[in-house]
Amino acid sequence: METLHVDLGDRSYPIFIGSVLTNPELVTPYIQSSQVCVVTNTTVAPLYLDKFCAALDGYKVTRVVLPDGESYKNLDTVNLIFDDLLSNQHNRKTTLVALGGGVIGDMTGFAAACYQRGVNFIQVPTTLLSQVDSSVGGKTGVNHALGKNMIGAFYQPQVVLADTEVLETLPPRELSAGIAEVIKYGLLGDAEFFSWLEENVEKLLACDTEALTYAIKRSCENKAKIVALDEKESGVRAFLNLGHTFGHAIETAMGYGEWLHGEAVGAGLLMASDLSHRMGLIDESVVQRTRTLLERANLPVKGPASISNDQYLSLMSVDKKVMDGRLRLVLLKQLGEAFVTSDIPNDLLIDCLNSNRES
Amino acid sequence: METLHVDLGDRSYPIFIGSVLTNPELVTPYIQSSQVCVVTNTTVAPLYLDKFCAALDGYKVTRVVLPDGESYKNLDTVNLIFDDLLSNQHNRKTTLVALGGGVIGDMTGFAAACYQRGVNFIQVPTTLLSQVDSSVGGKTGVNHALGKNMIGAFYQPQVVLADTEVLETLPPRELSAGIAEVIKYGLLGDAEFFSWLEENVEKLLACDTEALTYAIKRSCENKAKIVALDEKESGVRAFLNLGHTFGHAIETAMGYGEWLHGEAVGAGLLMASDLSHRMGLIDESVVQRTRTLLERANLPVKGPASISNDQYLSLMSVDKKVMDGRLRLVLLKQLGEAFVTSDIPNDLLIDCLNSNRES
Repeated sequence: METLHVDLGDRSYPIFIGSVLTNPELVTPYIQSSQVCVVTNTTVAPLYLDKFCAALDGYKVTRVVLPDGESYKNLDTVNLIFDDLLSNQHNRKTTLVALGGGVIGDMTGFAAACYQRGVNFIQVPTTLLSQVDSSVGGKTGVNHALGKNMIGAFYQPQVVLADTEVLETLPPRELSAGIAEVIKYGLLGDAEFFSWLEENVEKLLACDTEALTYAIKRSCENKAKIVALDEKESGVRAFLNLGHTFGHAIETAMGYGEWLHGEAVGAGLLMASDLSHRMGLIDESVVQRTRTLLERANLPVKGPASISNDQYLSLMSVDKKVMDGRLRLVLLKQLGEAFVTSDIPNDLLIDCLNSNRES
Repeated sequence: METLHVDLGDRSYPIFIGSVLTNPELVTPYIQSSQVCVVTNTTVAPLYLDKFCAALDGYKVTRVVLPDGESYKNLDTVNLIFDDLLSNQHNRKTTLVALGGGVIGDMTGFAAACYQRGVNFIQVPTTLLSQVDSSVGGKTGVNHALGKNMIGAFYQPQVVLADTEVLETLPPRELSAGIAEVIKYGLLGDAEFFSWLEENVEKLLACDTEALTYAIKRSCENKAKIVALDEKESGVRAFLNLGHTFGHAIETAMGYGEWLHGEAVGAGLLMASDLSHRMGLIDESVVQRTRTLLERANLPVKGPASISNDQYLSLMSVDKKVMDGRLRLVLLKQLGEAFVTSDIPNDLLIDCLNSNRES
């Protein structure tokens, strides 16, 4: 087992990585009363809900099993969590546990942030993507019909349990989606890690425990370093959105859930690299290395044929990074060095969109 | 005009009290981009929306007019604010303005706390109750079918404009409801202010500007002192709930909106005084003074005939102050000194409920 401490002053917390799902000693020190509410979904519940709850012997545990999928990440579904909490008289000392992927983590964290204006919560991410992404940063929230992740809160968990064994039951498509976020950390700030991935990506796809533990820890370290500098996203934290402005546009245009978040980010990473190259910032070899690594991870490297340039531009303009109507993007200065710019030549952006569209 | 500074470190803000509604100099320094969204309701809009917006000449202002009433204080109504923000492409530098009573303030503040994980907001409370209550403390949120104020956030405004002239158009019943909260501050921590109220309550009912300005400032000072000690309500802030556990039970049992919040608090204040007396903590004369002052303010001093003791006990047990299933109440040690206790003899509580029920 590896341990990583996320340092955020009085909101600091540990991440335990490895075979950690069923170890009461890792979780009970972070529960402050007898009440616990475990939130999961219909896919994870039959696999891991009983197993996890076995570690909570002696607690009054209520269980909320939500429908699975990004399309349910909205206020109505969060309200189902509130229904359980209130009908079972959970008080402000209760602890919510998010047992599932990013969608469960985002909604449960947001429910914890809002229930009685804030109760404790514990993240037990069961997908690679949520282990390397939602584990660090405290972003919680839901989608709105008009925009992704537009409603939410910054809210930190008490502890994160990132279990590597559960990844063996993850569908291959979702494992790849998680690898997209792992690749992102290499691209935006850790060229050495990018090279490590070029040597080890097949081990990740094969669920090699040691490789997974290393990749999860290093990704979380990279993210934690950035978040510690900028908890509320006023500066460098924007780097974490590399590929995401393109990716969110894809997800919104296709309808939430059609493309996995990590798949949309995969295509978005290549668009960001490609645009950086067109703008004369990076060498074409970086674009090629990115493309090859994404392809080896079985990730899409082009956006859907059905999204027009106008659709992209309109959807990208409601992105949270837009300031006073001007599009801002995270791009690359070199492999392992991101930056934010609103100085984006429109013709190059159009070329980039045209070149990275499935035919 | 009077100014009060609420001291909360980097979340400090001023409250301007007096004729302040239409003064751009008081509001524009707290708006950080060209975007503003003013949220109000169908009652306040025809009276003050144009008037207020005139102070925002040169800004891109969108307007959200919500249905009026506590019964609309829920997630669905907050979603109407998000609809406006997203369809008008408000970004994370936007400023929300709450122009209305406590319901508008609570929902708009919660929307500001959640929109893109937090944008700025300005409170322009237009009822006496919201001027003395919601102006300080940063409590925002909505009701759930199973409990009042169960979903929300602690979130501070950039500035509060408490205009005394708008109170002239307030229905007398609502003015009285506000006075209930004013009386609360005297009872729980400021005996001298309680005596002042015994001499001046009729001036408040007659909308005397000087008396109102004094009462609003002194109430906000009392609240600010407590909130500064305990922003997240782990200790003394609970004193502010004097009368509220009873009051919330009345509001929930009757259906939100039947009794005004301040009216329920009025009856609750007398119940809390009466129970404190029955437990041998305060002299009967304090109960009598409280009753007389509430009656002079045209407030109810008894709960509705239709609520049974069992209903009270059940509704009071889901209150946020309940710890591990044990009822806790704010009671009085003496006039001007509140405390929290869970050592409440059940027979005395029953006697108190029976004696303070309309026949």
